[in-house]
Amino acid sequence: MKPSTPVRFAMIGGGSWATALIKILSEGNVSIRWWLRSQADAEHIKRFHHNKSYLSDVQINTRKVKVCTKIREAIRDADYVILAVPAAFIADALKGLKADHFEGKGVISAIKGMIPTSNQLVTDWISDVYDVPSGKICCIAGPCHAEEVALEKQSYLTIASAGTHCAEEVAQLLTCRFVQASPLNDLYGVEYSAVMKNIIALACGITHGLGYGDNFQAVLVSNAMQEIRRFVDATYPMQRDLSRSAYLGDLLVTSYSPFSRNRTFGNLIGRGYTIQSAQMEMNMIAEGYYAVRSIHAINEEYNVSLPITEAVYRILYEGASPASEMADLKGKLS
Amino acid sequence: MKPSTPVRFAMIGGGSWATALIKILSEGNVSIRWWLRSQADAEHIKRFHHNKSYLSDVQINTRKVKVCTKIREAIRDADYVILAVPAAFIADALKGLKADHFEGKGVISAIKGMIPTSNQLVTDWISDVYDVPSGKICCIAGPCHAEEVALEKQSYLTIASAGTHCAEEVAQLLTCRFVQASPLNDLYGVEYSAVMKNIIALACGITHGLGYGDNFQAVLVSNAMQEIRRFVDATYPMQRDLSRSAYLGDLLVTSYSPFSRNRTFGNLIGRGYTIQSAQMEMNMIAEGYYAVRSIHAINEEYNVSLPITEAVYRILYEGASPASEMADLKGKLS
Repeated sequence: MKPSTPVRFAMIGGGSWATALIKILSEGNVSIRWWLRSQADAEHIKRFHHNKSYLSDVQINTRKVKVCTKIREAIRDADYVILAVPAAFIADALKGLKADHFEGKGVISAIKGMIPTSNQLVTDWISDVYDVPSGKICCIAGPCHAEEVALEKQSYLTIASAGTHCAEEVAQLLTCRFVQASPLNDLYGVEYSAVMKNIIALACGITHGLGYGDNFQAVLVSNAMQEIRRFVDATYPMQRDLSRSAYLGDLLVTSYSPFSRNRTFGNLIGRGYTIQSAQMEMNMIAEGYYAVRSIHAINEEYNVSLPITEAVYRILYEGASPASEMADLKGKLS
Repeated sequence: MKPSTPVRFAMIGGGSWATALIKILSEGNVSIRWWLRSQADAEHIKRFHHNKSYLSDVQINTRKVKVCTKIREAIRDADYVILAVPAAFIADALKGLKADHFEGKGVISAIKGMIPTSNQLVTDWISDVYDVPSGKICCIAGPCHAEEVALEKQSYLTIASAGTHCAEEVAQLLTCRFVQASPLNDLYGVEYSAVMKNIIALACGITHGLGYGDNFQAVLVSNAMQEIRRFVDATYPMQRDLSRSAYLGDLLVTSYSPFSRNRTFGNLIGRGYTIQSAQMEMNMIAEGYYAVRSIHAINEEYNVSLPITEAVYRILYEGASPASEMADLKGKLS
């Protein structure tokens, strides 16, 4: 029997989520071009078969995975391009590319954030800037910590598209021994929900830092689900079950996890750090920090009631006191 | 100005939830008769103003709270009787009472379990056995750990009734400095949901004990919300928003908490303890242990798909292996 042709991927990004996705995909019949910005990191993977800076225990199968630092070379032969850098840096990462380079390729966003300069969802921005048709775009949603993928703990992914065949194909490619991926026809709802959950995790961190307990967090997260529903129903109305893993599960894994950067960032703010010192302390950017500004801006048009998001916005961008914002919020929850 | 007459309560039960509710009610203008089974415990409270065995840091205001060990005396003058003993022991606790004794009184169930001998919800059993009219019955739902009430951490309660005035009144009486209580017109949905969350917490514990991680738990809890919805929609169909605190929040606080007895019990089972040795190790009964048998029995009539509940049932009552049950369940989630 002739072996089937490997599916060709380009992975854009060298962080922990990119590394976890490389691990998942390498379980299947694939050939991957892995683009990393840093020549030194790429060389390290080539020589030592693991990513020095992220999930360094994950063994990279270099028969299937070839690293490179030239973006055009990375995507040239790809069937699918996976985007896995923070939203704030994606434009810079792709800056050598034009619409032609994406022709005929599927694009998969593994980014949980919004383009900060235009307040766009990543998939919207991709289709705007690179003319990728909606039938060729999908996004990957959790609930899924990269750290647990590295340990081969059973995980689930949801592949969302605007009701196209693309999500089914990608779901099959991402299903392996320890990951079960399912397609879903709600690209925008899943993407917005993934963005908003980072804001909620920030709020959970802030209240935790202020000394609120588990009883309060359970109420905060329940109210957050209602807040997310109001927002996605207003922006992209459709029949959806928000208790599915892609929405509720993703919110839970982020809000309750000590791994969550957004929760950690919020916790520092709640404990009295300034925004600058919290960012320096963490040495990384919490996606929720940008997300809350984008959602706030988009909501100027829709005017949905978003008490949790607005409290976080005022704390991060208007100098409001975490303690008094959360004391106000307290009375708005039930 | 003449002071208003205190509202008179009888509290039945001496555990941590009873103690927490005593603390909450004592913030208001109340007079409470607190029934405890043990003479020694009652004497201790009378002399030292705290409950020796549960939440012993909570100061009991003995101007408002009088302990007693005679059930008839406890409820004689009460406007409201609060039931706060485990479901398996409530019949025994009330055995000196007849329907007459409840006449004109409101009954508030603070019990999160089912009557094991008849597979009834506690409020159904009360109205059956003691002829209490449905307009006089309500139940208290969380999310609310007693331990955090003791610390005066901001908490929320939902008071559910079959759409009657009773819930509103009780919600007002339970609202205080650190607790916000709201009424809701879905007695059965809230009660069943409170019962089922203990089964889910057991499942979370079992999978944790088996080595499944946070990614899996987030998916398990999301699927659990769908399972709870299917069950309450089948047994008591009505329009309800399951992302409210009384449903989702209560599930979260139990499933994610290290305080949860059900989760701890499940964890021991997952780690390979027998049921008997897990019960001995904990020295207490996890409500979910009985709840799963009742829900399983009730579902023989409704035949709703309850994969998580059924897996827990087979593990606890049919000697099924936790590892293989959870491996089967894994494929049924998404």
